[in-house]
Amino acid sequence: MKEHLKITIIGAGSSYTPELIEGLIKRHYELPIGELWLVDIKDGENKVSIIGSLTRRMLEKNNLSHIAVHVTFDRRQALKGADFVCSQFRAGCLEGRIRDERISLKYGMIGQETNGLGGFANACRTIPVALEICREMEALCPDAWLLNFTNPSGMVTEAILKHTKVKVVGLCNVPVIMQKGIASILDADEQDFVLQVAGLNHFIWARQILHEGRDKMQDVMDEILAGNDPLVPSNIPPFEWPAELLCNMRMIPCAYLRYYYTSEDILNQEIKEASGEGTRGEVVKAMEQRLFEIYRNPNLSEKPKELEKRGGQYYSEAACELMSSIYNDKRTIMHINTRNNGAINGLPDDCAVEVSCMITKAGPVPLNVAPFPDDTLRLIQLIKEFESLTVEAAVNGDRHAAHRALILNPLVTTGTVLEKALDETIEANRDHMPQFR
Amino acid sequence: MKEHLKITIIGAGSSYTPELIEGLIKRHYELPIGELWLVDIKDGENKVSIIGSLTRRMLEKNNLSHIAVHVTFDRRQALKGADFVCSQFRAGCLEGRIRDERISLKYGMIGQETNGLGGFANACRTIPVALEICREMEALCPDAWLLNFTNPSGMVTEAILKHTKVKVVGLCNVPVIMQKGIASILDADEQDFVLQVAGLNHFIWARQILHEGRDKMQDVMDEILAGNDPLVPSNIPPFEWPAELLCNMRMIPCAYLRYYYTSEDILNQEIKEASGEGTRGEVVKAMEQRLFEIYRNPNLSEKPKELEKRGGQYYSEAACELMSSIYNDKRTIMHINTRNNGAINGLPDDCAVEVSCMITKAGPVPLNVAPFPDDTLRLIQLIKEFESLTVEAAVNGDRHAAHRALILNPLVTTGTVLEKALDETIEANRDHMPQFR
Amino acid sequence: MKEHLKITIIGAGSSYTPELIEGLIKRHYELPIGELWLVDIKDGENKVSIIGSLTRRMLEKNNLSHIAVHVTFDRRQALKGADFVCSQFRAGCLEGRIRDERISLKYGMIGQETNGLGGFANACRTIPVALEICREMEALCPDAWLLNFTNPSGMVTEAILKHTKVKVVGLCNVPVIMQKGIASILDADEQDFVLQVAGLNHFIWARQILHEGRDKMQDVMDEILAGNDPLVPSNIPPFEWPAELLCNMRMIPCAYLRYYYTSEDILNQEIKEASGEGTRGEVVKAMEQRLFEIYRNPNLSEKPKELEKRGGQYYSEAACELMSSIYNDKRTIMHINTRNNGAINGLPDDCAVEVSCMITKAGPVPLNVAPFPDDTLRLIQLIKEFESLTVEAAVNGDRHAAHRALILNPLVTTGTVLEKALDETIEANRDHMPQFR
Amino acid sequence: MKEHLKITIIGAGSSYTPELIEGLIKRHYELPIGELWLVDIKDGENKVSIIGSLTRRMLEKNNLSHIAVHVTFDRRQALKGADFVCSQFRAGCLEGRIRDERISLKYGMIGQETNGLGGFANACRTIPVALEICREMEALCPDAWLLNFTNPSGMVTEAILKHTKVKVVGLCNVPVIMQKGIASILDADEQDFVLQVAGLNHFIWARQILHEGRDKMQDVMDEILAGNDPLVPSNIPPFEWPAELLCNMRMIPCAYLRYYYTSEDILNQEIKEASGEGTRGEVVKAMEQRLFEIYRNPNLSEKPKELEKRGGQYYSEAACELMSSIYNDKRTIMHINTRNNGAINGLPDDCAVEVSCMITKAGPVPLNVAPFPDDTLRLIQLIKEFESLTVEAAVNGDRHAAHRALILNPLVTTGTVLEKALDETIEANRDHMPQFR
Repeated sequence: MKEHLKITIIGAGSSYTPELIEGLIKRHYELPIGELWLVDIKDGENKVSIIGSLTRRMLEKNNLSHIAVHVTFDRRQALKGADFVCSQFRAGCLEGRIRDERISLKYGMIGQETNGLGGFANACRTIPVALEICREMEALCPDAWLLNFTNPSGMVTEAILKHTKVKVVGLCNVPVIMQKGIASILDADEQDFVLQVAGLNHFIWARQILHEGRDKMQDVMDEILAGNDPLVPSNIPPFEWPAELLCNMRMIPCAYLRYYYTSEDILNQEIKEASGEGTRGEVVKAMEQRLFEIYRNPNLSEKPKELEKRGGQYYSEAACELMSSIYNDKRTIMHINTRNNGAINGLPDDCAVEVSCMITKAGPVPLNVAPFPDDTLRLIQLIKEFESLTVEAAVNGDRHAAHRALILNPLVTTGTVLEKALDETIEANRDHMPQFR
Repeated sequence: MKEHLKITIIGAGSSYTPELIEGLIKRHYELPIGELWLVDIKDGENKVSIIGSLTRRMLEKNNLSHIAVHVTFDRRQALKGADFVCSQFRAGCLEGRIRDERISLKYGMIGQETNGLGGFANACRTIPVALEICREMEALCPDAWLLNFTNPSGMVTEAILKHTKVKVVGLCNVPVIMQKGIASILDADEQDFVLQVAGLNHFIWARQILHEGRDKMQDVMDEILAGNDPLVPSNIPPFEWPAELLCNMRMIPCAYLRYYYTSEDILNQEIKEASGEGTRGEVVKAMEQRLFEIYRNPNLSEKPKELEKRGGQYYSEAACELMSSIYNDKRTIMHINTRNNGAINGLPDDCAVEVSCMITKAGPVPLNVAPFPDDTLRLIQLIKEFESLTVEAAVNGDRHAAHRALILNPLVTTGTVLEKALDETIEANRDHMPQFR
Repeated sequence: MKEHLKITIIGAGSSYTPELIEGLIKRHYELPIGELWLVDIKDGENKVSIIGSLTRRMLEKNNLSHIAVHVTFDRRQALKGADFVCSQFRAGCLEGRIRDERISLKYGMIGQETNGLGGFANACRTIPVALEICREMEALCPDAWLLNFTNPSGMVTEAILKHTKVKVVGLCNVPVIMQKGIASILDADEQDFVLQVAGLNHFIWARQILHEGRDKMQDVMDEILAGNDPLVPSNIPPFEWPAELLCNMRMIPCAYLRYYYTSEDILNQEIKEASGEGTRGEVVKAMEQRLFEIYRNPNLSEKPKELEKRGGQYYSEAACELMSSIYNDKRTIMHINTRNNGAINGLPDDCAVEVSCMITKAGPVPLNVAPFPDDTLRLIQLIKEFESLTVEAAVNGDRHAAHRALILNPLVTTGTVLEKALDETIEANRDHMPQFR
Repeated sequence: MKEHLKITIIGAGSSYTPELIEGLIKRHYELPIGELWLVDIKDGENKVSIIGSLTRRMLEKNNLSHIAVHVTFDRRQALKGADFVCSQFRAGCLEGRIRDERISLKYGMIGQETNGLGGFANACRTIPVALEICREMEALCPDAWLLNFTNPSGMVTEAILKHTKVKVVGLCNVPVIMQKGIASILDADEQDFVLQVAGLNHFIWARQILHEGRDKMQDVMDEILAGNDPLVPSNIPPFEWPAELLCNMRMIPCAYLRYYYTSEDILNQEIKEASGEGTRGEVVKAMEQRLFEIYRNPNLSEKPKELEKRGGQYYSEAACELMSSIYNDKRTIMHINTRNNGAINGLPDDCAVEVSCMITKAGPVPLNVAPFPDDTLRLIQLIKEFESLTVEAAVNGDRHAAHRALILNPLVTTGTVLEKALDETIEANRDHMPQFR
């Protein structure tokens, strides 16, 4: 077993990075890191160098100065021989995200980075870059595991699974928050029960909660219906579920399903925000600026509290636990994006799904997923078809595939409005979507 | 072979009836009608008696006075021993339809009688009555064929197939209009080519156009893309298809698919109409009043020209040809709603689909349907799930099924808006939806 | 519409050819043949020249001397510009068939030319030749229809569908005999009822018999169970069906299903025959010699009665009716081997199935097939998998695929016996199976 | 957590019981047994009382005399309040098994207790008794887990899953032997790797062997192909696999698949044995008599070595580990018969399959099974259909279902031979198959 792991972080100038560093520090006794490579692009020089310095201070404070920290723009050097690669870059930066939100809202649609028109645009910007990184990994670190947090995580993972040989795991904090929320409802330790989730990224349902010999699904749902819903990430508006829907479902939809089950309410809220405090992207951008102000403080040597409001909490938990579970063959049950391979009946074998897996040294082994009720399956199939066509459009620059993808998505308006919105999206992103030329 | 057929028309006070009578007259040499029973409810007394008189004048003019015409409110007597039953009643009358349209629009949704919230409401009003009629048929004319034109035709047919033993065929004029439109593009006789359609009622695609030894699909699509689209019924706004979509589909969507592929444009047009000339239901109501003014003219003894503007043209053609094809074992290829039974892969065997069939004495034999492309299949599966859950809700008065149905439909807005719209729909229809009490 | 059709017969030296000529003569008023090309290989020179002379005498007797008859070994010349190509060659001649039978019996298995080890061997000899012919057709007569009677007809058709662009229809006399047998039971004309069959070549079931407005399935089964079974070709031993099986099936298995449902009885009979009158191939060989003695009589100018005992009766009927139905767009319902394309649920879209089709100018349009009961479907899936793996083995010379194919077939013995039988089969056919080298 | 478990053994007079007792003794520190109930029928009085005495001596020797041992014929008393029920009875005793073997061989078929005609007969004798026990459990110990070892374990489990509410787990030693064999090939501890198996009882394949971060499938297969095959139970003839088949499969068939892949060899060996040392049942019967001679020795207080030759080794290991894993929520990966629920695509949700599961307090959670290759899936589907129809026949005494089941099974001869063999089977078992009257 390797004793000096090389970990490479792509998009290390992200404001999330300190959480990841904190996670690695916490696990230092079980995950022997030798080198840490922080990679970003030239445009992010300022941010990544702030992060580099903070990282060094954090390691030093924890007596881990023996870990070499490299800040670089040379991605190939950083990838060479890496054991784990964490991908958290944002193609087109927050400006791209904000643009997606504003274009969507302009045409009367929800603007969001992983679904609808915004998710489509984000996928088209991101997937070409992700595949480029994977080509380099195939050459420079073919045995490395790629932990992808870059959104839209499900579609990016599917593109990598379909078009490269890289061992990729797609991660998301949504199921982690569900696990923690359920733990708090059950008043149990997180490892004391088996939560099984299934679906697509940002489109999952908790299907089973095994605890002390029983399925506690109904107990947990009763709590949520009673108004105690700790399963919602801080960046999702906490609308109440349609009670009639929820109490008959026998499974718990993840918070992001609010975008589908209460789309009108979300749209109205987004419209209000856009003309007030700003879109989510704009809020995050302001938050990021404040965070970097804090990070640059030379006396800071730990993750600041303020980061928790940022929205992506527990990403680092997922990432660090995954690395450790692979490295130590811990067989923890985690909820990740991986190749379907028959797990969800009614979806193609080669698509990406988000399911609960036992994480072993040889990779994730998905648990069997009980068949979904027909109506929920239809929704999942629809969104997966949107995702797969979006991946096709993103890889080949195929406008027809783009159109077919978007027309299926219930968050996307159809007709002449869609044609105009799609034109504007491609035009506004012309520097980041060369495939559509 | 029977030589005196008894034909019963339920909802005979409809303004469509003269077209049906005309169709029967045209085929008098091959369809030996002995009795014609015109049934309606007390509230429709005035209209049905006008129709009765007109019918007698039309028969007389064509020297068919030997056909006995009975106008009655006694449905059981009219059904007893019938050979063919034509169902064209409208539960809740045009007032119900107009109410559906206005409620839908109030909540920002398309208002229409066969899909979305309006289609749901119409199904919930209509299906209980349709099943009641079928119970009577099981007792009084178990061998009769039921020709259902009552909308929503697909859902009504499915309810009858699932819950009764009646031999039902669901009819619609949409594929007839496609057949005629394609004939005009090909400059061919309607029986000179084989058109194959498949999908659900108001949700079909032309899949194949065999003519003179070739599939003429591409030729027909080229004409349509060039702006010559005679496949649109007069009651559907003739928006152009998104060219990119259509020219890559290799199949022709029926005009009603505009509601899905150009929903925003349709919604805007409906909003405009509602505050101008009136909703479709209101326009039809005014038109009906004018038609009945004409019908009551004692000198009129043929179907008046004005009826053609009414929208349902060719219904009679479909109905009369179907009766004749069954009676004479003609094996005409017709496009009807029937039990899926494996025809469209990916849908349950027991649901209703609209497919091309060879019509024999023993009933319709569907042609095999080539598998749909995945993305189109996903849409069909979604709408079928909406329909099947709506049927369940309509039969059992199950509000949870209603909610699950509506949440799937892309024409229906979700969230608190939906809850309110559903409440208002059920409340406004309380006299016609006793099942929800 | 072409007025001088060119028809090419590959393997014209077959003793069946006079029946085909008779069929063409019968339809001369609707099928305007200009040229008839009789092709065979050098080894068959004697037989094909006898057939050529007989053909000319038959045409002359019917005042059809204007039809040019060409006897040739130049296949390319014969194919050039052909409108219909009938393929009835036998790769490896009757000697190959006899060898298959003897090897199978030696290892305790049924020996037969379309299923089991014999069917496998026949496919491996035949498919390479069939594909060679198709390559020539792609170049020399790309619009021609290929009517394949060469056995194993299902597997040969599948190989052609998967590996060439030729418009192929696989034909068999088994469903024709069923149609005629049912007509005799119903005392009806063959065109007076709709028979629907489905399955694989030599592995079909009658699923529906629509006659005078009813499904007459049960009536026909009652007759068969009462011992009146005219549905059996003369070359299949007329064992009785297991009554319990048949009377609960609600569909009629074709006679060849005796090989599966009564395999032990068939095997015992074959063993007896092999040590007595000879195997089927040997019997046919002797019969052929007698037939050619008759054919060479210069006074013979019609199909002799003796041919009817040969076993393949009604092939010509199927072939000629198919050509006429295509040429005249007759829309006759025929039962043919064609691409599945969703017709039988549970089989791949691209495999060959034998189903009832409406034959149009543009080719066959299969009727929808109601889902099979699970247990029957399992058998069909198994045999289809055997067939598809056999096609793969035949095309690629893949011994592993051959082994996987054979191990699935219920008529094939497994274990060391199979290994030896497979070795011997390949060795004994080394001149006809170059692909396995 | 309960501290005095009540364990009930049905069919405790089996010669296997001492191994089970040994397994319980080994785990006494983690599985706090309070009472042990040994149940058998009157006819087994002698054997069960010998077992009872031996059990007491074994417990005493291990200082576990506080565990109360009850020997009884009153099954209801024994079941009342039980925590775990182990079912290992044999309906019709060894005489029934021997009869099955002899009848099968007489008609030229393999005679075996879990597949073919013998498996069918065993299921028909056993399932009615198993369901009777389950009815009692529903009333007397509704929360107990039923560990079923009674053969045919897969079909018995399926009958219980379909017709009762009992929490049943079907067990078999075959996957345990595979796990141990693979451990010996890998030179690893059994818990050091993840073996994943899937299929049906006695019809499974090892699909994955995760060890030290790699799938070791190919390494293990290479060893087996080199002749080192420790995966075969002592009661299965160690024929070599057809090398061509095995080395291209990428999965390891369980030893029982020899019955399908080398059926001719097994049949020949059985014929030889039947006329020599006796059938397997006869050999076991003699062995049992010797074992009971040993067991009755009052000085014996441990499981004797001789038991290992008996064939069912490691049953106890599976049973005891399962009880402990449920009791202690150990989440061991075990290979058991449970409800399919989507695990193996292409099989009904409600049938029993044998798959690898994580065993939790709340029961087994199956791991996802990657889709099988088509040809293997076809075999599995066929055998499952045989099993499900056999269960139907066993429950309802439906001879038609029996016939449909047997005709599908590749180990069963068809035709008149089958009719006779089935008649004789039902007649010879008339005391044990009242359902067929």
